[in-house]
Amino acid sequence: MADKTDLVELRREFHQNPEPGWREFWTTAKIVDEIERIGVDELHIGSEAVNTTERLGVPDDQELSDWLEQARKQIERPDVLDKIAGGKTGAVAVIENGEGPCVALRVDIDALPITESSATDHTPTAEGFRSTNEGFMHACGHDAHITLGLGVLETLSAREFNGTFKVFFQPSEELLGGGKAMASTSHLNDVDYLLGVHVGLEKETGEVIAGMDGALALSRFDISIEGESAHAGAAPEDGQNAIQAFVTAASDIYAIPRHQDGDTRVNLGEIHTENAANVIADLVTAKAEVRGESTQLMEYMKESVYDRLEHAAAMHGCDVDVTVIGESIRQDCDREMVDSVYETAERIDGVTSPVRRDTLGASEDATYLMKTVAENGGKATYVGLGASNPSGHHTPTFDIDEDCLPIGVSVLSQTALDLLA
Amino acid sequence: MADKTDLVELRREFHQNPEPGWREFWTTAKIVDEIERIGVDELHIGSEAVNTTERLGVPDDQELSDWLEQARKQIERPDVLDKIAGGKTGAVAVIENGEGPCVALRVDIDALPITESSATDHTPTAEGFRSTNEGFMHACGHDAHITLGLGVLETLSAREFNGTFKVFFQPSEELLGGGKAMASTSHLNDVDYLLGVHVGLEKETGEVIAGMDGALALSRFDISIEGESAHAGAAPEDGQNAIQAFVTAASDIYAIPRHQDGDTRVNLGEIHTENAANVIADLVTAKAEVRGESTQLMEYMKESVYDRLEHAAAMHGCDVDVTVIGESIRQDCDREMVDSVYETAERIDGVTSPVRRDTLGASEDATYLMKTVAENGGKATYVGLGASNPSGHHTPTFDIDEDCLPIGVSVLSQTALDLLA
Amino acid sequence: MADKTDLVELRREFHQNPEPGWREFWTTAKIVDEIERIGVDELHIGSEAVNTTERLGVPDDQELSDWLEQARKQIERPDVLDKIAGGKTGAVAVIENGEGPCVALRVDIDALPITESSATDHTPTAEGFRSTNEGFMHACGHDAHITLGLGVLETLSAREFNGTFKVFFQPSEELLGGGKAMASTSHLNDVDYLLGVHVGLEKETGEVIAGMDGALALSRFDISIEGESAHAGAAPEDGQNAIQAFVTAASDIYAIPRHQDGDTRVNLGEIHTENAANVIADLVTAKAEVRGESTQLMEYMKESVYDRLEHAAAMHGCDVDVTVIGESIRQDCDREMVDSVYETAERIDGVTSPVRRDTLGASEDATYLMKTVAENGGKATYVGLGASNPSGHHTPTFDIDEDCLPIGVSVLSQTALDLLA
Amino acid sequence: MADKTDLVELRREFHQNPEPGWREFWTTAKIVDEIERIGVDELHIGSEAVNTTERLGVPDDQELSDWLEQARKQIERPDVLDKIAGGKTGAVAVIENGEGPCVALRVDIDALPITESSATDHTPTAEGFRSTNEGFMHACGHDAHITLGLGVLETLSAREFNGTFKVFFQPSEELLGGGKAMASTSHLNDVDYLLGVHVGLEKETGEVIAGMDGALALSRFDISIEGESAHAGAAPEDGQNAIQAFVTAASDIYAIPRHQDGDTRVNLGEIHTENAANVIADLVTAKAEVRGESTQLMEYMKESVYDRLEHAAAMHGCDVDVTVIGESIRQDCDREMVDSVYETAERIDGVTSPVRRDTLGASEDATYLMKTVAENGGKATYVGLGASNPSGHHTPTFDIDEDCLPIGVSVLSQTALDLLA
Repeated sequence: MADKTDLVELRREFHQNPEPGWREFWTTAKIVDEIERIGVDELHIGSEAVNTTERLGVPDDQELSDWLEQARKQIERPDVLDKIAGGKTGAVAVIENGEGPCVALRVDIDALPITESSATDHTPTAEGFRSTNEGFMHACGHDAHITLGLGVLETLSAREFNGTFKVFFQPSEELLGGGKAMASTSHLNDVDYLLGVHVGLEKETGEVIAGMDGALALSRFDISIEGESAHAGAAPEDGQNAIQAFVTAASDIYAIPRHQDGDTRVNLGEIHTENAANVIADLVTAKAEVRGESTQLMEYMKESVYDRLEHAAAMHGCDVDVTVIGESIRQDCDREMVDSVYETAERIDGVTSPVRRDTLGASEDATYLMKTVAENGGKATYVGLGASNPSGHHTPTFDIDEDCLPIGVSVLSQTALDLLA
Repeated sequence: MADKTDLVELRREFHQNPEPGWREFWTTAKIVDEIERIGVDELHIGSEAVNTTERLGVPDDQELSDWLEQARKQIERPDVLDKIAGGKTGAVAVIENGEGPCVALRVDIDALPITESSATDHTPTAEGFRSTNEGFMHACGHDAHITLGLGVLETLSAREFNGTFKVFFQPSEELLGGGKAMASTSHLNDVDYLLGVHVGLEKETGEVIAGMDGALALSRFDISIEGESAHAGAAPEDGQNAIQAFVTAASDIYAIPRHQDGDTRVNLGEIHTENAANVIADLVTAKAEVRGESTQLMEYMKESVYDRLEHAAAMHGCDVDVTVIGESIRQDCDREMVDSVYETAERIDGVTSPVRRDTLGASEDATYLMKTVAENGGKATYVGLGASNPSGHHTPTFDIDEDCLPIGVSVLSQTALDLLA
Repeated sequence: MADKTDLVELRREFHQNPEPGWREFWTTAKIVDEIERIGVDELHIGSEAVNTTERLGVPDDQELSDWLEQARKQIERPDVLDKIAGGKTGAVAVIENGEGPCVALRVDIDALPITESSATDHTPTAEGFRSTNEGFMHACGHDAHITLGLGVLETLSAREFNGTFKVFFQPSEELLGGGKAMASTSHLNDVDYLLGVHVGLEKETGEVIAGMDGALALSRFDISIEGESAHAGAAPEDGQNAIQAFVTAASDIYAIPRHQDGDTRVNLGEIHTENAANVIADLVTAKAEVRGESTQLMEYMKESVYDRLEHAAAMHGCDVDVTVIGESIRQDCDREMVDSVYETAERIDGVTSPVRRDTLGASEDATYLMKTVAENGGKATYVGLGASNPSGHHTPTFDIDEDCLPIGVSVLSQTALDLLA
Repeated sequence: MADKTDLVELRREFHQNPEPGWREFWTTAKIVDEIERIGVDELHIGSEAVNTTERLGVPDDQELSDWLEQARKQIERPDVLDKIAGGKTGAVAVIENGEGPCVALRVDIDALPITESSATDHTPTAEGFRSTNEGFMHACGHDAHITLGLGVLETLSAREFNGTFKVFFQPSEELLGGGKAMASTSHLNDVDYLLGVHVGLEKETGEVIAGMDGALALSRFDISIEGESAHAGAAPEDGQNAIQAFVTAASDIYAIPRHQDGDTRVNLGEIHTENAANVIADLVTAKAEVRGESTQLMEYMKESVYDRLEHAAAMHGCDVDVTVIGESIRQDCDREMVDSVYETAERIDGVTSPVRRDTLGASEDATYLMKTVAENGGKATYVGLGASNPSGHHTPTFDIDEDCLPIGVSVLSQTALDLLA
């Protein structure tokens, strides 16, 4: 399939049907269709593909079933949809060719809650493959990632090699919710070499970066502080003021000490209280985000925020509930793996500008899979694939130069084949 | 009209058509209809009845015109509606009978944003006069107040007296928005005696309290803090963090020093920020409420809140905007006036339990009119009229015992006539 | 002894030898000398006069023994001094005359850490009885109180009555440290009527106020927050920052909600940290004071401060220690008792202006004794005795008009005798 | 003089007479004696050696004159002492040998307020040259620095070279108070190459580091917040609470946003309030310290602290005063200069371990001189000289291996001569 026409057609179909994290029902079913067409030795979906207890940011049941119902109308795969119902999206495909190392590719499959541009100079609009799920959009290129995953799988399926090749179609990357869930299945146990990939990144088509890393580790969470209401005029001392608890916590959250080991970040958002001003607040909800130059620093910030919330709530007789809704760790690329990709890329037609390393500006939960591989003694890297994106990631006019697709398939396939030689 | 049947019919018509503050378009037109039927010497509406620049909490134009359009469909008084368009509701009716003192009655006319109960044991529902403006309700008895105003006006119009009698139909009491606007017209200049009245107050029908007062002075305001956003991970120092400004202000707002002169209160509510946690907040909106045992103490608290907001915003490079949306001052009842009402009430049929004084639990902007009268050398009181209300004020099942209506008309009319004798 | 000359001589001797709270060693020994001269039925000192475990604000051992050594040089009563060593000052004298009620008088005996004026127009200086304990002064009139206690005791010892009469010479009133300790002995168990007394209070000689009360209940405490130091530049996250803990607590302490039941107060003082700015603070010490219109309100404030300290310390990994160093409760005068004193005062020569009640501006721990008596079914009042004090209490030029002494002895003695008749 | 015996003798004399910053009166006079013995072309002292308006942390007049009087007793140089009175310590010595480049050496001359160990295994105690100014000590090796400055000066004075050689004897490095004052004289205008030097640093004798740098820029300041007192019980709203102003500022000071450009630090210390807890505080004094990975980051933190203090004070009606008492900027070593020193050091006897670069752990205000030289187009480095110090800098048992002295003189002299060749 590494034929450009097929890749483009496939990418456009995914582009047209964007689904957000844990709701990639049609997407998963469509991937399964394609994998079955290609033919593999093993195919895992549902609770065989993700560790359901490690999922973060799973929407509520209503939200999940609304999207599932929509998918049922779009694709005739009740067998698949039944298995992935309840937010168990994603898939793992395996080709086994006897003795040899195990190489894996990880791609992410979810879309964003962004309304796609309907400007006529936005190619998806002009060429008729604009999002049909109004309000949602593949605005980060995961449609291309799925296509690369399937393209490489098809390429490998047609080639001789000794060992095992896997593709992880990971759900819910944008929520930083699926990486840990997929990393904590057994499918990574035997992986010796892991490749991740991202298109775009403000790089021109033809540029391939063998190792992208350095993003701060990140954790996002929901905060809910529950107090007790009282009339602010008649009985001000009777309430347990959730606003005072929040204000005390927030004040100290911004003041968490800097750390000698490196950069840290913390911020709050989406603060809401519904109490009229004549009532002592019984509820504050908010979101927080912490980052660290290392996973340890992110954990330091997270624990520090928890501490401040817990004690500020206790001070004001309130209860606090914190739920992590997304998380990524820091895991940098393996130097040898970077060298392998770089050397392969240098030999691929279409790669006009191979680059050894660059910095990844945004958080990415492929790091969970990379770390698990490293802990098992394997090696991993995260590859950047230039795609001359005309506007930034996460914007309504994001798009990619589809010429990047055959280049990506070639670089990834050839790297895998070199490692499996 | 002090016939109970007429009073009940009138009250029920007002009950069925509740309109919130500054949107009492149908209500005002209907009141004008009734006043014209009764016949008076002067009738003031629109900018002759309220000082438009002193109105607080006036809704936006769209909101006002939506309610006006609805009123146009319900009542054929384009002459009146044109004059009161733009939130210039309310009316002042005057009967002049030559030389003599000037007595006035003030009643309020607005309703609340409460959905009325449709339970079959809720009399308005059972008897078919439930609110037809879904989501709004006369849940505080102002429908009865209008009726009392008209009933007393009709009674006085049929009697001999020497002097002047006025009724102030005041808009927007629930918002604490209309008292100051009506008090700052010239219609109070010659008023020697002012009567206010409230039904219900958890008192049984037959109870009349000659002087209700003591509510804390109160000011409500909207707060908006504007900062500048920045990416919380990439450029944390670039933002002007509106959340930090708010947190600093809030922390100090709750810590405004107690005051030797008496009770004070302060509280915050309806805090909202929309920024995602990965963005430094550029906007916080909130509401605040301060109270004081005296008007001066309320002002002390208000100034103190302003100071804290201003300096906390400046500290964080933010701008702050504060808009007062409602205010009531403290003004207690005049002792002589209380005595007059009490002595009159003792003589009225139906008054089974005359009471000299009691404490008013809630803020009330009739105090602006009472204070203006007092400053002009006049006397004022605020009368409580028991109405065996089956459930609390501002609840969906609030109602009154309509037997209170003729009692109220008698007490107020007779007090006025005694003063005008 | 109610001879003015004797009273003046005695008062001047006490004035010349001021000793602060829990250090009234010479004072107690001198009182014992006088009581023995008068002759009583019972005399209690040391741990028989104060409940040692209820003392507040007791100084450290070195401080106590320094003052004790000085007293040993001034008075030859090793028997007494041995018993009261360690800060067990004060005395209770009892005259028993068979069946009848029990009347008691409470006076306080301690001085203040104020350097007395050496101006020649300051009578004690001019007349040669200025303080000989430089830095300490009877600047609140307790020298007169002791004299009144002894004068009344001597008067009663010379008179016939039926029942029991006691004088409580209470230590450490200025620290609000002795009231509770004396109230919690058994000596109040049988007291039916208790009289307290204070001279001065900006009232002219000849004025006697039968009931002074209304001072806010008060609690004073020492705060110590212990954290852990670290280098602020090299390892900012390693410390447990006692300053941050304090700042968080302080911020919330000033923001303790107002209370519907009445006035409350809170304030901080004497904050000290010794850490250089390049070291994370491991210690903050401070003092706090809370007040309430009632004892319950004072307790509400105290508990609220404790809560904030505890949780703020926990938030920052610190320990906090709070020690109450002084406390007074609210206890108002009994109306019947006020009437008794008033009626007696009206009949006494020299009382030119009897007053029924007035407000006491400062805290006073006689309230502990008054409350215990009330709880036992007895009655108590606190009497004000005008003394034309030329300058305010607690100033270096405080003094009294000694003409108040015989008046005070007469009023108090006669009230007691009336009650014992 | 690069004879070890002479160097040791000289170092011990300085060690025995430690004087803290701006009080190095004897020290400067002694240095002048030595410079005169050596003979130079120019010698600048007093306001010719330091820009008096740029001095930071100058003690009060009493403190200065106490130390000056002591110096007058120890050394007969009234001419020198008169010129340097008032804290104008330090000296600049110049040797001019015609055309050629200008090379300079900067050494610091002040001691610390540390009581030197009197343990018998502490060499200065054992050998009889322990500090004679009890409570003060050369606990950072500046005694050796002065010695190196004089040793190198003597060496150069005895050698042929083309150009100019200067030694800056800088006062008040420990206070970070003298660097800027000396850097802002005209003596650096013509300097092409500047050498700084520090002994010890936990390095063994024989180790020479050609470039030590990387310390965070730092600013220390005194804070004083002035409010207005009031009685906390009687009139809590009357005060302008300096404690509340401080608490608000402190809370926000710890919460100054992290900066994308690198590490920052902030901390508070020495907080003092003297108000009794029953008085609203009218004064808070404290110290603060900020650091930054660059001078700009330090300035960012300093400005941020100022902002928070200013607005928190204004919020509470207080005035705030901030005085910088010490400051150092970031200035790293010039690469070429490092290479010069390294290459010279490799050739010197006694240098067993030449090192090109290492990190300086502590702040150092030699950076002001280095930066001025760099801005003028010159080059500068800061050399580390191993001295097997048996215990850490700034401890009572700090000492150096005096073998480092001839090594240091050789390395610095030879580098200078190479540059002047």
